[in-house]
Amino acid sequence: MDLSNRARVAPPSPIRKLVPLADRAKAAGARVYHLNIGQPDIPTPPAMWEALRRANIEVLDYSPSGGIPAFVQALQGYYRGHGHDLAREELIVTTAGSEAILFALAVVCDPGDEIVIPEPFYANYNGYATLLGVRVAPVASLPETGYALPPRSELEARIGPRTRAILLCNPCNPTGRVYTREEFTTVVELARRHDLYFIADEVYREFCYADEAPISVLGFPEIADRAIMVDSLSKRFSVCGARVGCLAARNRELVAAAMKFAQARLSPPTLGQLMGIAGLALPPSYHEQVREEYRRRRDAVLEELGRMPGVVCRPPQGAFYVMAKLPVDDAEAFVRWLLDEFRLEGETLMVAPGNGFYATPGAGASEVRIAYVLEVEKLRRAMRILAAALRAYRPAPAAAPGTR
Amino acid sequence: MDLSNRARVAPPSPIRKLVPLADRAKAAGARVYHLNIGQPDIPTPPAMWEALRRANIEVLDYSPSGGIPAFVQALQGYYRGHGHDLAREELIVTTAGSEAILFALAVVCDPGDEIVIPEPFYANYNGYATLLGVRVAPVASLPETGYALPPRSELEARIGPRTRAILLCNPCNPTGRVYTREEFTTVVELARRHDLYFIADEVYREFCYADEAPISVLGFPEIADRAIMVDSLSKRFSVCGARVGCLAARNRELVAAAMKFAQARLSPPTLGQLMGIAGLALPPSYHEQVREEYRRRRDAVLEELGRMPGVVCRPPQGAFYVMAKLPVDDAEAFVRWLLDEFRLEGETLMVAPGNGFYATPGAGASEVRIAYVLEVEKLRRAMRILAAALRAYRPAPAAAPGTR
Repeated sequence: MDLSNRARVAPPSPIRKLVPLADRAKAAGARVYHLNIGQPDIPTPPAMWEALRRANIEVLDYSPSGGIPAFVQALQGYYRGHGHDLAREELIVTTAGSEAILFALAVVCDPGDEIVIPEPFYANYNGYATLLGVRVAPVASLPETGYALPPRSELEARIGPRTRAILLCNPCNPTGRVYTREEFTTVVELARRHDLYFIADEVYREFCYADEAPISVLGFPEIADRAIMVDSLSKRFSVCGARVGCLAARNRELVAAAMKFAQARLSPPTLGQLMGIAGLALPPSYHEQVREEYRRRRDAVLEELGRMPGVVCRPPQGAFYVMAKLPVDDAEAFVRWLLDEFRLEGETLMVAPGNGFYATPGAGASEVRIAYVLEVEKLRRAMRILAAALRAYRPAPAAAPGTR
Repeated sequence: MDLSNRARVAPPSPIRKLVPLADRAKAAGARVYHLNIGQPDIPTPPAMWEALRRANIEVLDYSPSGGIPAFVQALQGYYRGHGHDLAREELIVTTAGSEAILFALAVVCDPGDEIVIPEPFYANYNGYATLLGVRVAPVASLPETGYALPPRSELEARIGPRTRAILLCNPCNPTGRVYTREEFTTVVELARRHDLYFIADEVYREFCYADEAPISVLGFPEIADRAIMVDSLSKRFSVCGARVGCLAARNRELVAAAMKFAQARLSPPTLGQLMGIAGLALPPSYHEQVREEYRRRRDAVLEELGRMPGVVCRPPQGAFYVMAKLPVDDAEAFVRWLLDEFRLEGETLMVAPGNGFYATPGAGASEVRIAYVLEVEKLRRAMRILAAALRAYRPAPAAAPGTR
C-alpha cells in the first residue's frame, strides 16, 4: 500500500531519530548524557504541582477550544507584563508550541506555498511544513557571524510568488541567536514590501543572557495585521510534558480562522492549563534564577568547547543551545558512533546532528546542536566525554570488521 | 492580509460554534443543559487521579514521541483483551483521537486526495481533511435505516482515481450506529478491490448496547496492510481533557511514517498517559457499570423523544448520541433560538445542529445530534425543555423586531 507523498518525504526528527540508539546503549549498561533535546532538568515549580493537587476535579473534561478562561487571563497578564496588550480574540491556547506552529502555517499557507526561514532552524518547522504541503525556503545564516540574520538581499532573493511568510525563532533554537532590532526591522520591512506574514517563535523569551530583553514581533504596530507569535510554557517552566502553549496575533480574522482548526481538535490539555495558571503567577525572580542557572551552564559549555581543538562556536546569547562545528566530516555518523561504540568509563553523550536543522542538502554536516539542559557538573562531564571522543574518533568505524 | 484557502473554507465545529451563545445565556442567568458535546459527566475513575497524585514527578518532561513505554504496554494489554495482538511498532500514542485522525489522514492522503465517509459523520473529520487539503466524499446513510451503511453500489460510485480511503466510525458518532459484520465486510471488499485504506474510528468501543461487541477493523487479516485504527481514552474513562489516544496499524511502514509526524510534535501529554496506565488496569466491571448507565440514559432520551410529535429517530445501539429529525426546517436556527430566547423556568438546552455532520450542502437541516451525557433526571428535564420548545417555536423569530 502506497503512503502519501508527504509521509514519504517527511523528515525524521534530528532530535529524536537517534533515540533508539541511546536506548540500546542504556540497555547495555551505559550512562548517556542527553544533550540532544531541549528537555530542561530544572524542577517544575512546586506551585504548579500544588495547583494540580488542589484542583479537586471530578471529571477531567474538555477545556474550551481556545483555552480555559482563567488561563487565557493569566496569559494576557503575562504578555501585558512584556508590554503587549492582547484581547481575548487575539489569543488561542494551543497544545504546546508545536500546535501553534501547525496553526500558524495552516492559516497562512496552502499546499505549494513557501515560507522563508534562516537556517539552521528548529527542525520541526520542516516536519509541519511537510505535513501541510508547504515548502521551506532556507537562507543560510553562518556560524562565523554568530548566526546573524542573513543579508536582506539574500532573504529577498528567496521571496517568490508563492512565498507567504518569513519565520524567525527568537531567541533562536538551535543557534542561540538573539536577533537585534535592526534584524527585526529588516524582516518587518520585507514583510510589508512583499505582503508577507512575519511568524515569530518566541518560546525562549526568558532565556536571554544579553543586557536587553529579546524583541517580540508583537512590538511592531506597523505589521499588526501580519505578525503572528508562537509561544509555549514548556521551556519557561520546565513543563515540556504538559503540552501547553499559545498563538497570538492582532489580526482577529486570522485568529478566528485558527480557532476553526482549534475546534477540530476540541481542546488543549486541561491539566497543563491548570498548572500554567500557577506558573504564570510566579514572581519575576523565578525566571531570574533560572536564567542565571542557564547562564552558568552556557558559560561552562563554552569554556569546555573552547578547549577542544578544531571546534568552532561563537557564544550564543539566548535559548539553551549551542551550535558547534566539530572537526568531523559527518557529525551524524559521529553521534551514532558515540552511542554505539564510544564509552568513557561507561558513559557517553548524545547531541543532535546539525544536518537535521538545515533544509539545504549537505549543509550543517559537521555541526551539532548541544542543549545545555543539565547541571554544570554533568555538562562539564559530558563535554569531557565529547573531548575524549573527538580525540578517539576515526571516521566510519562501523564499517570496520570486528568492532561490534 | 489574505488567509490561506484552507483557513477560509475550514468549517467551524458544529459542536462548538454556538458555545458563545450558550455562554451568553449563562451569563444572563439561564441554566443550559449541554447535550451538544460528547463530554461525559461520569466521574473520572479515582484510580486515575490517584495515579497522578502518586506519580511524584520532579520535572514534567516530554514523553517519548510514540508514548511512555508503560502506557504503550498497557494499551497492548487492553487490545490483547479485545483479541488484537499489537507489536510496539504497530502503535503510536497520540494527543487524543483528534491527532490520531490527523496522522491517519496525513500518511494516507496528499492534497487533492479523497476519502469516502458515510454521512452524517463526526464533523471534525472535515476539519482535519480541510487542514490537510483532503476532500471528503460523503455517501448518505439514512435515518430510516438506522443509518445503516449505504449500499455498496453507492459507496462504489463515490470511489474515484483520487480516493485513498474509506472511513467508518464504529460505534458511530453521531448516529449511534453499530455496523454489522456484513457492513464491515462490504468495506473490506471495497478496500481490497479499489486499493484503499480502511480507517476505523473506534473510540466508542465500550459504548455498545447490542448483544455482540462492536467489530474492529483490526479483526480482518485480509486487510492487515490497509487497516488503520484510531482510538482515544477520552470517552472510555471520562478523561476528555487528558488528550490521550492512539493510532494502530499492522502496516509498520505506515506507523513509522506517522511516527515522523509524531516526532515533529515531540510528545503526547505526559500526565494523561500516567492516568491512562491506571485506567487501562481497571476491571471490566468498570466498563459494564458505565455502559449500563448510558443504556439507561439512552432509553430515557428515546422514551422522551418518542413522545414528541413529529420527531423521527431510531434507537441507536452504540456511542452516546442520538440523531433526531425535528419538525423544524432549520435546526440550527432552532438551536440558536433555544440559546438566545427560549427559557423554561429559566432553563434551556443546547444540542448540535445536524447540518454540521454532513458534507452535502443542505443535508441534515432538520436534524440535531443529542449527546446523552448527563444523568437520567437531567436528561429527562432537558428533553422536556426540548418538547416545550418545539411546541413554542415559530421559525425566524430573530428577524422579528423587538424580540431581543
